[in-house]
Amino acid sequence: MSKGRLEAFSDGVIAIIITIMVLELRPPEGVNAHALGELRSDLLAYVLSFVLLGIYWNNHHVLVGATRRVTSGILWANLHLLFWLSLVPFATAWMGRNPHTPFPIAVYGGVAFLSAVAYTILQMTIIAADGHGSRLAQAVGHDMKGRLSLAAYALSIVLAFVYSPISYALFVFVALIWLIPDRRIAHHAE
Amino acid sequence: MSKGRLEAFSDGVIAIIITIMVLELRPPEGVNAHALGELRSDLLAYVLSFVLLGIYWNNHHVLVGATRRVTSGILWANLHLLFWLSLVPFATAWMGRNPHTPFPIAVYGGVAFLSAVAYTILQMTIIAADGHGSRLAQAVGHDMKGRLSLAAYALSIVLAFVYSPISYALFVFVALIWLIPDRRIAHHAE
Amino acid sequence: MSKGRLEAFSDGVIAIIITIMVLELRPPEGVNAHALGELRSDLLAYVLSFVLLGIYWNNHHVLVGATRRVTSGILWANLHLLFWLSLVPFATAWMGRNPHTPFPIAVYGGVAFLSAVAYTILQMTIIAADGHGSRLAQAVGHDMKGRLSLAAYALSIVLAFVYSPISYALFVFVALIWLIPDRRIAHHAE
Amino acid sequence: MSKGRLEAFSDGVIAIIITIMVLELRPPEGVNAHALGELRSDLLAYVLSFVLLGIYWNNHHVLVGATRRVTSGILWANLHLLFWLSLVPFATAWMGRNPHTPFPIAVYGGVAFLSAVAYTILQMTIIAADGHGSRLAQAVGHDMKGRLSLAAYALSIVLAFVYSPISYALFVFVALIWLIPDRRIAHHAE
Repeated sequence: MSKGRLEAFSDGVIAIIITIMVLELRPPEGVNAHALGELRSDLLAYVLSFVLLGIYWNNHHVLVGATRRVTSGILWANLHLLFWLSLVPFATAWMGRNPHTPFPIAVYGGVAFLSAVAYTILQMTIIAADGHGSRLAQAVGHDMKGRLSLAAYALSIVLAFVYSPISYALFVFVALIWLIPDRRIAHHAE
Repeated sequence: MSKGRLEAFSDGVIAIIITIMVLELRPPEGVNAHALGELRSDLLAYVLSFVLLGIYWNNHHVLVGATRRVTSGILWANLHLLFWLSLVPFATAWMGRNPHTPFPIAVYGGVAFLSAVAYTILQMTIIAADGHGSRLAQAVGHDMKGRLSLAAYALSIVLAFVYSPISYALFVFVALIWLIPDRRIAHHAE
Repeated sequence: MSKGRLEAFSDGVIAIIITIMVLELRPPEGVNAHALGELRSDLLAYVLSFVLLGIYWNNHHVLVGATRRVTSGILWANLHLLFWLSLVPFATAWMGRNPHTPFPIAVYGGVAFLSAVAYTILQMTIIAADGHGSRLAQAVGHDMKGRLSLAAYALSIVLAFVYSPISYALFVFVALIWLIPDRRIAHHAE
Repeated sequence: MSKGRLEAFSDGVIAIIITIMVLELRPPEGVNAHALGELRSDLLAYVLSFVLLGIYWNNHHVLVGATRRVTSGILWANLHLLFWLSLVPFATAWMGRNPHTPFPIAVYGGVAFLSAVAYTILQMTIIAADGHGSRLAQAVGHDMKGRLSLAAYALSIVLAFVYSPISYALFVFVALIWLIPDRRIAHHAE
């Protein structure tokens, strides 16, 4: 199993996930600005998830690019990540339709949290497979961004039931800290 | 026709099948934990099929990787496998919506059984094309896992009408014996 | 523009077309063999179109494999073919739902006919671009299969209004003559 | 991050966008020519968007092919382009269903306009990354086609509220000027 195959399959799945989300954007019955305006929250949820998946695609490449060899454990850790990402369209559609209701927001936060957990597991599995002197291990270091994301998503689940705008702010916050690709890994990978 | 093309097309189809299943998970009308709970069986059926397709993707790679040359027969045996796998989303949605009804469970078992038959045919076609001293033939050996899977799926069809929990147990059982990729083939293929 | 990119994009589109057709197979309301039986014609239409698209994928590879250089005209002739193939899911769903009504059968025949015309145009464009001594030109020769397919599909459109079983027989007939990949081209391409 | 990965992911997303549009073409309830005729505007909108996306796919390849190195900025400029293109199916379905209503036509023009803006940004980002003596910069020159497209799409938004047939004419006009791939870039890229 080469890295190329793993990347190609992951690219395919992420490309499909990112694209089928748009199928949830049903053309409205009305034909004016007001009708489009009613899709506002669906559109914003779509933008948020598009950026989220874009970030995963981006970081996934850097991660796999720094991998030395592909083991069976890495394959399954990767499928595990793709599983949680595949639930993003579902969570996006539910939250987009109910933008002011705690539970769907918490579910979105939960899917984001478990995706982040799966990403962390994938990272750890790759580092373990690389063994001593792993380039990825050095590059990741203390993985502040990863820890911060996990904490923010965990908080967003709880706070959805307290004051949901904070959950949205946390989703945007995590997106912003990741929008800059992980230069440390990219640098070491060269 | 190179192996690369065969793999790329198969990867594409499996990636799409695995992803469009999630389109069956419709966001519920309600907005609380109870509403999500009603999707429980749909979600479990989705997890089961995600793992099933993940296993096929994994083993398919090992299988094609051990192939010496791609013949017209292999192409069609491969499309035949993809055909049965493409019915998995349909069977998953039907069973997920009717988790306690024998017939949809038996249909799911039937699709799984015919996918396993198609996989066996593909394997035999590749071995036949490789001719004497096929690496794949040596690696597969008596193909205990394959025979066991076929028997388990055949049983699951019949037992769905007797006591359906056994059918579910058989689906999980087959998934578990395959979760470990076929080291024998992978080993020989190196 | 390399052949690889053309192939990869075409593979992607055909893989998606072949897979989204299954989204038209809605799980029935009922939960017994009778309910599944009502999907009989949808399933048969799906099988027919799956084989049709499998044949195009197969022959497309052989065709592009024998191509010397990719011109702008070839790109657009290829997109033109993909356009007609993309209407196959629509025609399949309509015919599958109305298996005994002339018009949807004729529309299916029409989409199949225009796909075959587009394939012929692509083939001619490639031969023209290859210039004198084109391997593809020699391999294709008088293109009996192609002419036969065009004639059969044209007939199927007209005969749908006379006696529709003949149209179905013609669809199956064309599939059968192409199930064997074009050995002549494959042979010359080596 | 290699150009190959960027191309493969973009190809995948564009292939999916172009194909899922066909899911909006629902088989009509009726079974005669009249029923099909009622889909006329949906079909025409589909053809228009198919050509639009075909042009983007084509030009995107030429653009990335002329790129020297892939930076983080290019990755995000590319995802930004894919984002606007991903809204094409939504705009197509809405306009196809309401072919004589100003607002959906203006929204289609708006999505086309913002896609063109995103393409221009991607082009500028690549030229900036290439630095002095960029092949792409020389090839693009004054980018008359690009400027013309932006102006035409901007006009189409306003004119949809005045006399909508002009907006359609502008959509077709832009398609026509791009149907010929950008020979200048292709020439320089060789």
